[in-house]
Amino acid sequence: MAEIHGVKFVLCLSFSLLLNLYFLWTSTRSVKELSWSKGAAVEAEVVASVSCSGHGRAFLDGVLVDGKPMCECNSCYVGADCSHFLDGCIADADSGDPLFLEPFWMKNAASSAVVVAGWHRMSYSFRDSHTRTSNELENHIRLLHAVIGNAVTEGRYIVIGVGSTQLLSAAVHALSPNGSASPAKVVATIPFYALYKAQTKYFNSEDSKWQGDTSLWENSTSLSKNTTDTSATFVEFVTSPNNPDGKLMKAVLDGSSVKTIYDHAYYWPHFTAIEAPADENVMIFTLSKVTGHAGSRFGWAVVKDKDVYERIAQYINLNILVATHDTQLRALKLLSVALKGGGKELFGFGYKAMRHRWKKLSRSLSKSSRFSLQNLEPMYCTYFEEVTGPSPAYAWLKCEREEDKDCHEVLKSAGIIGREGSVFGAESRYVRLSLLKGQDDFDWLLERIDALVSQEYGSRSI
Amino acid sequence: MAEIHGVKFVLCLSFSLLLNLYFLWTSTRSVKELSWSKGAAVEAEVVASVSCSGHGRAFLDGVLVDGKPMCECNSCYVGADCSHFLDGCIADADSGDPLFLEPFWMKNAASSAVVVAGWHRMSYSFRDSHTRTSNELENHIRLLHAVIGNAVTEGRYIVIGVGSTQLLSAAVHALSPNGSASPAKVVATIPFYALYKAQTKYFNSEDSKWQGDTSLWENSTSLSKNTTDTSATFVEFVTSPNNPDGKLMKAVLDGSSVKTIYDHAYYWPHFTAIEAPADENVMIFTLSKVTGHAGSRFGWAVVKDKDVYERIAQYINLNILVATHDTQLRALKLLSVALKGGGKELFGFGYKAMRHRWKKLSRSLSKSSRFSLQNLEPMYCTYFEEVTGPSPAYAWLKCEREEDKDCHEVLKSAGIIGREGSVFGAESRYVRLSLLKGQDDFDWLLERIDALVSQEYGSRSI
Repeated sequence: MAEIHGVKFVLCLSFSLLLNLYFLWTSTRSVKELSWSKGAAVEAEVVASVSCSGHGRAFLDGVLVDGKPMCECNSCYVGADCSHFLDGCIADADSGDPLFLEPFWMKNAASSAVVVAGWHRMSYSFRDSHTRTSNELENHIRLLHAVIGNAVTEGRYIVIGVGSTQLLSAAVHALSPNGSASPAKVVATIPFYALYKAQTKYFNSEDSKWQGDTSLWENSTSLSKNTTDTSATFVEFVTSPNNPDGKLMKAVLDGSSVKTIYDHAYYWPHFTAIEAPADENVMIFTLSKVTGHAGSRFGWAVVKDKDVYERIAQYINLNILVATHDTQLRALKLLSVALKGGGKELFGFGYKAMRHRWKKLSRSLSKSSRFSLQNLEPMYCTYFEEVTGPSPAYAWLKCEREEDKDCHEVLKSAGIIGREGSVFGAESRYVRLSLLKGQDDFDWLLERIDALVSQEYGSRSI
Repeated sequence: MAEIHGVKFVLCLSFSLLLNLYFLWTSTRSVKELSWSKGAAVEAEVVASVSCSGHGRAFLDGVLVDGKPMCECNSCYVGADCSHFLDGCIADADSGDPLFLEPFWMKNAASSAVVVAGWHRMSYSFRDSHTRTSNELENHIRLLHAVIGNAVTEGRYIVIGVGSTQLLSAAVHALSPNGSASPAKVVATIPFYALYKAQTKYFNSEDSKWQGDTSLWENSTSLSKNTTDTSATFVEFVTSPNNPDGKLMKAVLDGSSVKTIYDHAYYWPHFTAIEAPADENVMIFTLSKVTGHAGSRFGWAVVKDKDVYERIAQYINLNILVATHDTQLRALKLLSVALKGGGKELFGFGYKAMRHRWKKLSRSLSKSSRFSLQNLEPMYCTYFEEVTGPSPAYAWLKCEREEDKDCHEVLKSAGIIGREGSVFGAESRYVRLSLLKGQDDFDWLLERIDALVSQEYGSRSI
């Protein structure tokens, strides 16, 4: 029954999209000459045509040099046209900047561009509905989940925010008791994404306190099983696939006093096999790791319970009033491209890129006994309808030698910057290496890794 | 000396803008045929050409009906083309939606449109500078303040956020002692903008507590004069011009333990005469009340002290990581249009519109003894270089009759919705009426007011 509803839902939304396309096709034929939008279009194409040797890019809002927007070079490249490689440059694999998808958007330039008119949505709300989220955008989000099969959204509430970043703290606030003498205990399982801890501590709300690793609480008597007592509310973050190690995760704590926030930022076919549609009470997603638009700061929460949804929405409202309409417009356009061909174009591209990188890195490190990678198994992916090999966003590297306690330092002295294991609450012999940055970054990282591994052989052969 | 620096600064930025324009002019001549941007341009023009009878608008991300984005009608208008006025409709003068500027952007369509490429700034940060704010945008903000003369920005830090909304709570956090046994007392002077209180209470930080009206604390011994003791830190909000009553305000509390946040959202020539460049420690502005783009959620703080700047930036970082690049791009374009003709086009339009509305409303209410408006005097405006009459964003209406204690109810029964005085901490015999909404909204408000005032005459003549 639910399946029939699901199919109806997808058909209905697909039909709406098709109508949309038909309308645009017929309408575009009626506009023969551009008027007010032409200058902006020309301006954008001029900037896009600035050559940066394939190692950088000029942007419309870039710094001007002699009146021209200058090339902004990729790491390790310099010069007016980014053509010079900087000798001895450090391979920076720290941030989760998802630029591996940039070539996809260059290739899909025509379908992904959007013109924002000067008068576009100046109001706080949508004119006659008084809502603050575009209905079309919400439909596209639901359709994307239905097509990819990674989350149930039927009968669920959707609330959008400024990246998953804002929604994470909004969700903690929404799930914490309000004005209770006993604040919610916020926990996660090591290794965990550092922001959960940083936000909870920094915003320092009376309603929630950071309480570390779930293992400290797993067998705690505070875990109320049979009551609705809120004196010991737990808010557990579950990141699945996990950041940093890419593993699919489940909640550790159990009990009526446990509320769980599923951070599904990476639960897309780029980074993992899709097992089944996730169907949790609170699930958080971000455009950043779907289309690669980290700079747009667009995230959404899928929420079962109306009251929790309203509390999250209230947090967003008091924090920023409403998510920017400019990004809502752009996200709608990007998601419409993401949906093309049932998502196969974008997700095919993304998976192939990430899979290729993981294979290359694994091959390099397979020669090493000094360093190891997390173990990830091939799995059946319901989206690709086949068994797919691992393609994680990050390598979770371990320094195996007894003396290499500070793995970050070991890598640094070999010209590689990763993110310290301690940031994730883990031992210092772990380091996270970002694999989803631009191609130049990955290529240089791999070269530095190869050089490091070959040193190992060199020292052995001596 | 400061003045010479100021002139140099303006000249330098003006030169940079001129170079920019020259570059675009020469470049556009070299692009003869549009390629990837054309489809988006056509799409935008098609939607813009949908007729909504002048009482609504169709948007690119609007709800589709039969595959076409439908007209979103102004309040009180209905029908597929918004041509029908709804009899007995209530005049909604509640929100501060700055749509009075929409016609300006319709008129300046060509210069204010912007094309966002699919690959535009996907990264969290700006590629080679690793900053998260566009330099050009920051320069435009500084230039705008220099040209309007409403704030000193030389040697000041600028941090951008999601509207002034986010920056207000970021500033409270930045000015509150961290982890002190004694949280900051957050105060404002009645009548005050309700969000200050709502945010402080809702986010419920251990570092700051809402403590009401400044008059409660004016002569308090907690006001440390001679020490750097933080046990009694006050954070005072000063809104100037004030929301709701449009008066220019100064801080009430004084002492070394008092930190002040100047909310200068309305300190622009649309709404008030500019007296002198404001030069406070922490000043907050929002695009919403400059260009009218409330839906873009773009604000900035001008900050003297490096440490405070860094704490505000850290709050933004943990709250949303970075302000969306989509809005940064659009804000840059909008501010470049705002600067045209030394700002005279936009601010001339804005002042004229608001002045006209105030005169009309004042004239209507001058016949009434039942209702009165706040008293605002003509003042010399350094920007227009002449004495200008009042042009506030809101009317702060008072019900003068003894029995009209609930002014909001009195107006409501006459078909007018304002915002209750109690929301601003004031008596219920006050109501705020928004004057900066779209023309249809203002026209209908005025009709309802006229009808209400004429009732007064009617009852007298009986």
